[in-house]
Amino acid sequence: MSNDPLVIFTPSGKRGRFPAGTPVLTAARQLGVDLDSVCGGRGICSKCQVTPSYGEFSKHGVTVAPDALSDWNAVEERYDQKRGLAKGRRLGCQATIQHDVVIDVPPESQVHKQVVRKRAEARDIVMNPAVRLYYVEVEEPDMHEPSGDLERLIAALENQWGIRNIEADLHILPQLQPILRKGGWRVTVALHQGMGAPRIMHLWPGFYEGTLYGLAVDLGSTTIAAHLCDLRSGEVVASSGLMNPQIRFGEDLMSRVSYSMMNPGGADEMTRAVREGMNTLFEQITTEAGIDRTLIMDSVFVMNPVMHHLFLGIDAYELGQAPFALATSNALHLRASDLDLTLHPAARTYILPCIAGHVGADAAAVTLSEAPDKSEDLVLVVDVGTNAEIQLGNKHRLLACSSPTGPAFEGAQISAGQRAAPGAIERVEIDPITKDPRFRVIGCDLWSDDPGFGAAIAATGITGICGSGIIEAIAEMRMAGIVDASGLIGSAEQVGTQRCIADGRTHSYVLWHGTEDSPRITVTNPDIRAIQMAKAALYSGARLLMDKLGVDTVDRVVLAGAFGAHISPKHAMVLGMIPDCVLDKVTSAGNAAGTGARIALLNSDTRAEIEDTVRRIEKIETAIEPRFQEHFVNASALPNSSEPFPILNSVVPLPDVSFNTGGDDSGGRRRRRRG
Amino acid sequence: MSNDPLVIFTPSGKRGRFPAGTPVLTAARQLGVDLDSVCGGRGICSKCQVTPSYGEFSKHGVTVAPDALSDWNAVEERYDQKRGLAKGRRLGCQATIQHDVVIDVPPESQVHKQVVRKRAEARDIVMNPAVRLYYVEVEEPDMHEPSGDLERLIAALENQWGIRNIEADLHILPQLQPILRKGGWRVTVALHQGMGAPRIMHLWPGFYEGTLYGLAVDLGSTTIAAHLCDLRSGEVVASSGLMNPQIRFGEDLMSRVSYSMMNPGGADEMTRAVREGMNTLFEQITTEAGIDRTLIMDSVFVMNPVMHHLFLGIDAYELGQAPFALATSNALHLRASDLDLTLHPAARTYILPCIAGHVGADAAAVTLSEAPDKSEDLVLVVDVGTNAEIQLGNKHRLLACSSPTGPAFEGAQISAGQRAAPGAIERVEIDPITKDPRFRVIGCDLWSDDPGFGAAIAATGITGICGSGIIEAIAEMRMAGIVDASGLIGSAEQVGTQRCIADGRTHSYVLWHGTEDSPRITVTNPDIRAIQMAKAALYSGARLLMDKLGVDTVDRVVLAGAFGAHISPKHAMVLGMIPDCVLDKVTSAGNAAGTGARIALLNSDTRAEIEDTVRRIEKIETAIEPRFQEHFVNASALPNSSEPFPILNSVVPLPDVSFNTGGDDSGGRRRRRRG
Repeated sequence: MSNDPLVIFTPSGKRGRFPAGTPVLTAARQLGVDLDSVCGGRGICSKCQVTPSYGEFSKHGVTVAPDALSDWNAVEERYDQKRGLAKGRRLGCQATIQHDVVIDVPPESQVHKQVVRKRAEARDIVMNPAVRLYYVEVEEPDMHEPSGDLERLIAALENQWGIRNIEADLHILPQLQPILRKGGWRVTVALHQGMGAPRIMHLWPGFYEGTLYGLAVDLGSTTIAAHLCDLRSGEVVASSGLMNPQIRFGEDLMSRVSYSMMNPGGADEMTRAVREGMNTLFEQITTEAGIDRTLIMDSVFVMNPVMHHLFLGIDAYELGQAPFALATSNALHLRASDLDLTLHPAARTYILPCIAGHVGADAAAVTLSEAPDKSEDLVLVVDVGTNAEIQLGNKHRLLACSSPTGPAFEGAQISAGQRAAPGAIERVEIDPITKDPRFRVIGCDLWSDDPGFGAAIAATGITGICGSGIIEAIAEMRMAGIVDASGLIGSAEQVGTQRCIADGRTHSYVLWHGTEDSPRITVTNPDIRAIQMAKAALYSGARLLMDKLGVDTVDRVVLAGAFGAHISPKHAMVLGMIPDCVLDKVTSAGNAAGTGARIALLNSDTRAEIEDTVRRIEKIETAIEPRFQEHFVNASALPNSSEPFPILNSVVPLPDVSFNTGGDDSGGRRRRRRG
Repeated sequence: MSNDPLVIFTPSGKRGRFPAGTPVLTAARQLGVDLDSVCGGRGICSKCQVTPSYGEFSKHGVTVAPDALSDWNAVEERYDQKRGLAKGRRLGCQATIQHDVVIDVPPESQVHKQVVRKRAEARDIVMNPAVRLYYVEVEEPDMHEPSGDLERLIAALENQWGIRNIEADLHILPQLQPILRKGGWRVTVALHQGMGAPRIMHLWPGFYEGTLYGLAVDLGSTTIAAHLCDLRSGEVVASSGLMNPQIRFGEDLMSRVSYSMMNPGGADEMTRAVREGMNTLFEQITTEAGIDRTLIMDSVFVMNPVMHHLFLGIDAYELGQAPFALATSNALHLRASDLDLTLHPAARTYILPCIAGHVGADAAAVTLSEAPDKSEDLVLVVDVGTNAEIQLGNKHRLLACSSPTGPAFEGAQISAGQRAAPGAIERVEIDPITKDPRFRVIGCDLWSDDPGFGAAIAATGITGICGSGIIEAIAEMRMAGIVDASGLIGSAEQVGTQRCIADGRTHSYVLWHGTEDSPRITVTNPDIRAIQMAKAALYSGARLLMDKLGVDTVDRVVLAGAFGAHISPKHAMVLGMIPDCVLDKVTSAGNAAGTGARIALLNSDTRAEIEDTVRRIEKIETAIEPRFQEHFVNASALPNSSEPFPILNSVVPLPDVSFNTGGDDSGGRRRRRRG
């Protein structure tokens, strides 16, 4: 035995001795090395390509001779002529081991290859799709041992691939006999594994070389975003989005819940609309990618609880009132056709579990993407929308809640507010001495005091303030002493600038004087009040979770969602939206819900993992927590009337001004309490 | 402990001691006594009725005092007033044990009650349907412990009924929340158990008192027969039949296989036709029974392989040619909606396994009904149709084959042949001295020589001979010396009757001279030849199985199928259709395939049982067995040119006549070989 050649695989480092003449693929399989093969070692699929290394390897204690592997054989010659085998590459099923050798398995030859994510703190995705291809050679029928063609196909999959308890979808039966005979008893099988028995989804005669696809879909109240993924490489082949067609029944979730209460059959109508929208989106994305829609065999959906119910055909009525009971909270393993989705006829659909009545499958997807449950340090994950979903924890314990922030962060309820679109003010700076602002608008890289700004924005104009713009504007006003901790804007006299103008019983701050084409843009005291309410809701949710964990600080903050991607951490902290934290520990995760859907699509192991995590999450319902109200009142101040924010104060000293003249009750009260 | 009252249940004989005050239902459950309950002991369903017995029971060694059970309580009083509780009955969940007691569980209170079959040799059916009702009380939603309504319903089923891993069909979700709230968190659940995870099929608010139904369907080439069964009592509520609408594509199976070969889309057309026919039949049977079709929650289908494939939407092309490969042979667990059947939307369909390319799910159903695999003695089971399915074995070993008998036994290929219908001759006797016949026709109880026969048959006339009639006619002709062992009819001179008339190169026997209204009916030599071919095919299949088992006799013969029900064992044996056997050991099983379907419907345990049996059956393909031809030639004689039939000869001596005049080659040859 010890005279047999030694084989060392990289990067795994797995090693073993095998008799001379053993194919590399056989050695890899016996050692449990991750080396791909669709054809089962028949020299057809070329998925098992490896790169032998030659010379001396002191690290491994071996010297690899030039004849360590067998010479190219006829199969490799033919493959090279037809397709080209890259220099240095061998087919693992053809090359046999002759002497000690070091063999590298390149990423593209690994089944469980890693899909690298761009963000340093994010885990890479390990490929393990639910649907995979298997090539088999099936025994021909024998009158002496009668059995069905399906039973012999299943036996072939068992014997050649070691997969047990396989079943077949009914639609396979009519195709089975002609395909087996057309392929000369050789077929490629698309097999779904994961939930329940492995199921035969599709058959191709002979060896099928094509790609299978999956869809990761983030079904938002406003937009539906889909990523079309290659189920072998993990690559995003195309991405596409669509306005949620349910918008015609109501802009926000609660108006859609009302629609179904007011209109008999309204829930069904909304279900049909969103499913039709899905199919339109799938048509759009497959056209863009230039692929056949029936090659999409798997799909993963994430969404908030109301969208979850309406997509599944459930009236969301109960979600509109306490106790906010979900019809079902567990993950769902369905056929896409059950949801009227026109993909492959056997395509599967996985919907992540909902965490609670206000914390949906989209929040579970954020958990999967950002993995607070695997974090060593204490992380606060906030997905900001009309509802903020808040998670706090580490690998020992994870808590979640939602808090009704309302639409102010999206620019609604703000006098000059608008959606993030060209022309909207998105960045603001205010000079603490002159109290004059400068700003940038979406669609233009220049600041408003840069030369050429006027010309650059001529096409879009200055149309309003978007969510991130209003955050920065108010935070800058607080830093410049234009607004006090209670949220009151000072008068021109108090602040020392004519930009503070009287506006009814309060004052407003003029951000932009306006021109003939674009109206004057001010930040009003009601604007500030709206943002105060929204950020107080957000902060008090987070603070409640901190209470439950018995902590006063968090190690890091992750802002998820589109809004989180544009928000400035410093300004958010000045407003007291998020807890006091080292600024560079506040990061943006982008569309973490969509990423979570993609992870569940590409690595089916993560489905059971997130289901288990969601079961273990401690769910907090803010509406019934006695301290929520107290936190909310404290958090209405800028940044907070009870918490000190020492890290923030060390970086950004906030002027201690007060503009309360006794006319504003709440401001006055708060001021007194703080003292 | 030993001072606790002793409880003895009958008929099970199970006994145990329980603290005074224990409800009877609780004691029954702990002892594993089969006592029904849908409401789980809440005094709602009244399914747990028992009959306590009082007095001395020397057999059990107890004396039961009048106060052995608690007095009637309020629940029993109320139930009695509303519904009436039969004299001596108590509700098992309300009556508590006070002193030693003997308690009888009447059949209607047993879950696994037995459905008695009429035939002495047939096993009773033990009730164990796949779909059952469970009443549960579900916890209300709690914001502190958010979970879906479905998850709490499933938890209630787990906790209150001990059922694990329950899943729900998607269609349940939209109904779930309103039904739970309408029922005040009390619901009755229809649960499917058996294959895969238990699944919630339907919900009713509160306690549902109604019945669930199932269908047992025998899908024949010519007719479809369905039995609608009560899934609790096992009773057949209605039976109905329909001509198979595929008949318009071809009378027999092979012409339907040809139709799909000749007509693109023909297989699909036939699939649609048979499924539409099914729905028509279901409409018909539910109308007859006066029930809602959506109360049908389970269904079992049996059929031959060609019908199996066409029903499933599979082209039967491969079944028309060697090696007769089935697309799938295993049992199928489907949703009825997958087959376009309009029953309850979640209704399940079970299709029994096929045994081989010519031995279908109908044969497996015969196995289930007649249980040759459980027989102590050696039994031959024959299902006679255009193909005969033949099974031979006992509890140690079971063999099966099919043999192509053709349609002669159904009256086809017979000059005066017709389907069994009013006016057809079905019974024949021939006087061995006078050689004159008398007969009976279907629809009339008189023999043709009885007074009043002419008037009695005036309405129908005498229209032809059906399958059982031709068997009796030829057998009687053989017994009367009108036909010889080779199958030749003698001349008037040879036989001594003017009823033998010349008919081309051979002779015919006049069974009925005819009248103005009804034509003359003769048995011709080609008629005899057709029956000889059919019965030789049948016998040689049986003989081949006997060879494989190494036996020359069988202990008993079971004739299945409609034809088997009308055939006379003595006449069948005179013809040599079946092996020599004691006459009263030849019995008819009626529609055993249909009965097998009903067993699989009513007792879902038998599904795994028959699947296992079918796997173990030794399948013999007669077409490739070298001895089949030899057996066939021998079996062409009446009864057989090589086998002695000693039991038959001891009961019915057959005249040793020969009418071969050298003009008929085959008859002559056979005669010689016998000598």
